[in-house]
Amino acid sequence: MIPQLALVPGEPAGIGPELCLRLIQQPRTDCRLLAFADPDTLRAAAAALSLPLNLLPEDAIARQPGDLPLREVRNAAPSRFGQADPANAGAVIGALLQAGQACLDGHLHGVVTGPVHKAVINQGGIAYSGTTELLADQAGVEVVMMLANDIVRVALATTHLPLRAVADAITADGLARTLRIVHGALRGAFGIAAPRIAVLGLNPHAGEDGHLGREELDLVIPLLARLRAEGMDLIGPLPADTAFLPQKLAGFDTVLAMYHDQGLPVLKYSGFEQAVNITLGLPYPRVAVDHGTALDLAGRGTADPSSLLAATQWCARLARQRTLVP
Amino acid sequence: MIPQLALVPGEPAGIGPELCLRLIQQPRTDCRLLAFADPDTLRAAAAALSLPLNLLPEDAIARQPGDLPLREVRNAAPSRFGQADPANAGAVIGALLQAGQACLDGHLHGVVTGPVHKAVINQGGIAYSGTTELLADQAGVEVVMMLANDIVRVALATTHLPLRAVADAITADGLARTLRIVHGALRGAFGIAAPRIAVLGLNPHAGEDGHLGREELDLVIPLLARLRAEGMDLIGPLPADTAFLPQKLAGFDTVLAMYHDQGLPVLKYSGFEQAVNITLGLPYPRVAVDHGTALDLAGRGTADPSSLLAATQWCARLARQRTLVP
Repeated sequence: MIPQLALVPGEPAGIGPELCLRLIQQPRTDCRLLAFADPDTLRAAAAALSLPLNLLPEDAIARQPGDLPLREVRNAAPSRFGQADPANAGAVIGALLQAGQACLDGHLHGVVTGPVHKAVINQGGIAYSGTTELLADQAGVEVVMMLANDIVRVALATTHLPLRAVADAITADGLARTLRIVHGALRGAFGIAAPRIAVLGLNPHAGEDGHLGREELDLVIPLLARLRAEGMDLIGPLPADTAFLPQKLAGFDTVLAMYHDQGLPVLKYSGFEQAVNITLGLPYPRVAVDHGTALDLAGRGTADPSSLLAATQWCARLARQRTLVP
Repeated sequence: MIPQLALVPGEPAGIGPELCLRLIQQPRTDCRLLAFADPDTLRAAAAALSLPLNLLPEDAIARQPGDLPLREVRNAAPSRFGQADPANAGAVIGALLQAGQACLDGHLHGVVTGPVHKAVINQGGIAYSGTTELLADQAGVEVVMMLANDIVRVALATTHLPLRAVADAITADGLARTLRIVHGALRGAFGIAAPRIAVLGLNPHAGEDGHLGREELDLVIPLLARLRAEGMDLIGPLPADTAFLPQKLAGFDTVLAMYHDQGLPVLKYSGFEQAVNITLGLPYPRVAVDHGTALDLAGRGTADPSSLLAATQWCARLARQRTLVP
């Protein structure tokens, strides 16, 4: 089976549309793509980059470079590269929700998303904290954010919190839910029969036997013991500074970091261009680029499409794997 | 001038002594070494590794592989590899203090230290939180810990604190003192006329304009503005996850991380074996290995001496540079 994926460019004034244009210049055998976007925005990106674009009906099949089946989601206002318009917030969010719904309804097998400009959506009157949260709410599930490249996969126990709020946000129940989602996704979408998950400590040196914080002794270690008894293969809690040493990473299918800046610097250092953002826990795979809208670059054709190419490959792989797993 | 450096092996039951033996098998032109250690411990390491050792008087000059001028600091109890004895805590700390004093007195030009076992020292009745703190107290100065390899240099605004204590430990005065020490050391010991220091935000995305924490707006940004007006070249506050991208790192002489697990995972990932721990702010250069006592490996000859070799090279370079700067 060739999975059919939704392709959602994100903010029309950013680099998302032109990255999609770059993406569809190459023939694909791993998936078929259906764009959820405004046709004029895609045409403007094609003109700006002098690349072929042939918009096709929804159920058509792309055969040539530039062919792109499209579900039209019209912008409210004409969009200009570099100038994000809050008037188009509804179209940006609408495209994401339509794509998610198509997967929930079983018509599509996964969603690939470009970058969205959080502040502009909120200025447009739509409360939005991120596409991950939007799709989780739509599906009515809890999710976990994983960032991945070819070297490291990092799942996050907490995401966008002020540092001083992190310690109190780590609870045994929350961590248990997170680990169940990660474990389930690695077994399901990733096709790893017995996933090995490394869990970082909250504190430096994983608390050093309580000398540098007690959360490991009081909360993390007992929880990991409980989950191991259920059959999960969990390593840790490990000191964050040495858990990413290359010879250690080779033994883990995923690292669970307790917070954003504990897990992501190594991921981005080790391969930023190919990094993608995978939402675990949805009933379908969703993979996003790991970069922003780059309004200052939009329309110039200089933006690097590597992350969108990698996101599409990841999503196709996860969607295919999912069909193999009951 | 060839700098003369103190070489202090650290815990006698750990891998420190054998790493020193490995170190002195190579001829050096960048420095002369004077060990502060127990002669029997060094002889036991030489025997265990079948390496030559010729202990020399303090003011002798090493000419052959295995030659080592020695200031005797006798252990209270015979030491056995792998079995750290709290009875020797006094000798371990005494060697460090004698080495520090020799530098303060102007007889030596720097200190290279092996790993010390914190818990064993405390079990021996000596309150000890780390060699960095010990030497800072002896010299009566404030210091900053920097971890370095050939790719990254990371200074830390806070070191070994529970994560929940970090946010309150970051103050404008403390950060100003830290930045002055880092700036002064880069200009002095490192010989960089106009050092460029990247300062990470405390919060993810450096607070994202206050949406993810206010410390950047309320504290870090105004402080950096004040210090820039004094002539410091400061970049930031930067989001930690993208500050270490290789093309960005190339523009910084040092990254100042706000806390341990924000700065050290990338450092160790990018080159653990060559990583060293440099104390900034002392009146002499002090460089330590960036690994522990590894009691389980001691006496086997399998421990990797790369970090001690790198620490010695760093210390020699910093000591030589210091003599060039008024």
